[in-house]
Amino acid sequence: MRFETRKQIRFHHCDPAGIVFYPQYFYLLHEAQEDFLAHIGYPEHELIASGLGVPIVDLKTEFLGMCRYGDEIRISLGLTRVGNASIGMHYEIHSCPRAPDVGTSLKLVARTVVVCSEVPHGKVRSIPDGLREALLPYLQTTTENKP
Amino acid sequence: MRFETRKQIRFHHCDPAGIVFYPQYFYLLHEAQEDFLAHIGYPEHELIASGLGVPIVDLKTEFLGMCRYGDEIRISLGLTRVGNASIGMHYEIHSCPRAPDVGTSLKLVARTVVVCSEVPHGKVRSIPDGLREALLPYLQTTTENKP
Amino acid sequence: MRFETRKQIRFHHCDPAGIVFYPQYFYLLHEAQEDFLAHIGYPEHELIASGLGVPIVDLKTEFLGMCRYGDEIRISLGLTRVGNASIGMHYEIHSCPRAPDVGTSLKLVARTVVVCSEVPHGKVRSIPDGLREALLPYLQTTTENKP
Amino acid sequence: MRFETRKQIRFHHCDPAGIVFYPQYFYLLHEAQEDFLAHIGYPEHELIASGLGVPIVDLKTEFLGMCRYGDEIRISLGLTRVGNASIGMHYEIHSCPRAPDVGTSLKLVARTVVVCSEVPHGKVRSIPDGLREALLPYLQTTTENKP
Repeated sequence: MRFETRKQIRFHHCDPAGIVFYPQYFYLLHEAQEDFLAHIGYPEHELIASGLGVPIVDLKTEFLGMCRYGDEIRISLGLTRVGNASIGMHYEIHSCPRAPDVGTSLKLVARTVVVCSEVPHGKVRSIPDGLREALLPYLQTTTENKP
Repeated sequence: MRFETRKQIRFHHCDPAGIVFYPQYFYLLHEAQEDFLAHIGYPEHELIASGLGVPIVDLKTEFLGMCRYGDEIRISLGLTRVGNASIGMHYEIHSCPRAPDVGTSLKLVARTVVVCSEVPHGKVRSIPDGLREALLPYLQTTTENKP
Repeated sequence: MRFETRKQIRFHHCDPAGIVFYPQYFYLLHEAQEDFLAHIGYPEHELIASGLGVPIVDLKTEFLGMCRYGDEIRISLGLTRVGNASIGMHYEIHSCPRAPDVGTSLKLVARTVVVCSEVPHGKVRSIPDGLREALLPYLQTTTENKP
Repeated sequence: MRFETRKQIRFHHCDPAGIVFYPQYFYLLHEAQEDFLAHIGYPEHELIASGLGVPIVDLKTEFLGMCRYGDEIRISLGLTRVGNASIGMHYEIHSCPRAPDVGTSLKLVARTVVVCSEVPHGKVRSIPDGLREALLPYLQTTTENKP
């Protein structure tokens, strides 16, 4: 199972070339992660308030197409790994077609690894049981998994 | 040869955990790229005004340590490839020690691939000869090259 | 009549004190302006594509309370003036209570003046008739108007 | 006496119209405030670490001209008031001419009021004596003061 959320490309995402400036994609991916954690019952602001953070340790991104101001996008998120403390995430950004007969198109693929850590000191800790259970339905099986 | 530039971690780089929020590192790396292009005689704003952009197509980043508000950092940049149209870049962010007897420490390693493109339509084009010549001294030899 | 839109305070809006860093409020106000223009049939990205921009010339803001990560906010927008080329806007940000028996509270009041201008050269021009007509229902009458 | 610092307009400051997107000016003004506090011996990150923050409560800004990617700017800062807990600040942004025979030009004027507060709870407190003494040389006299 994958989680999906829709976003709009805003004026402030775009650069003098009229396209999304690449660091802005990571704000959008982080918003998708926030939406996902809220959806599974663990809003990130509550996790942080309880002393649990999920800082990123690894990021790989392919930029496959440009997004422009006014575009509607769909961000999908699946998990590639739920370890003792680390979580592997796989994101895709698709543009939503403005015209009804145009297919969506894949704009960006990202893989992140985040690690459960104590806030604010950053010491690694295990994923709490409840959170682990809420994450597992999104763990991609081999056939779902993107290479 | 590598290019080096120093930056400060600013209040606006930091998140509620008091550390740099990861997309902000890419603003800092882009500033380093701007400083590098200006240093070799091809300021990016002049490249863009002349119709040449260098959008990113691939990014790999390892986050090795946290940076905090007030930290001084050193960003170094070397080139891993100067192709027909694409340029491979290798960045490192080191913190500068506040105390004189403390060594610097590596906080982040990033590898990017950017592609020379026409602004604003994004059509790929060859690296202009003058720019290529200015880039080549920063192409890492095998022994300099980081694995 | 006033326009209203709801937003969430995201991780990236917040600073090391755990509250919204003040420039981030202006991204939120600009998103509200984008939502408003789309609502009245003139999406900003289409205005810009047609050569019409609305840069800001004057801004006054009172910061009345702090917003935190996870807060839901309501932004309301009314117009204080629809001139030949300039538009006066009045924004309020209210937090939405998390508990049902708590009232909303006013966090920020802002007044902006934007001016219709030609993109990209910035020459002032009259508000197009269609846009003017779409704006007028949101012009605050004396009794609605905030002092 | 006024404090002055120089900055460059970076790619990430600019919007699809090729000019600085207005919230970005407040990041630049905040950087100037950081540079000022460090210059007078009270770096903001040390103030915050000691439990003292200076959140903004009021902001007035006139946007008088556009800044573009690659522009060099000069930000000057004087104080209009040093009260018991509040500090009034007056900022100007001037562009630095690229050609030697062109004068600078005023792009932005901003007035802010910040209030000494306890971190993280925001309770107002008096300006500490040492900080007050360091601020006073920058308090504008009537003749220096901008209307």
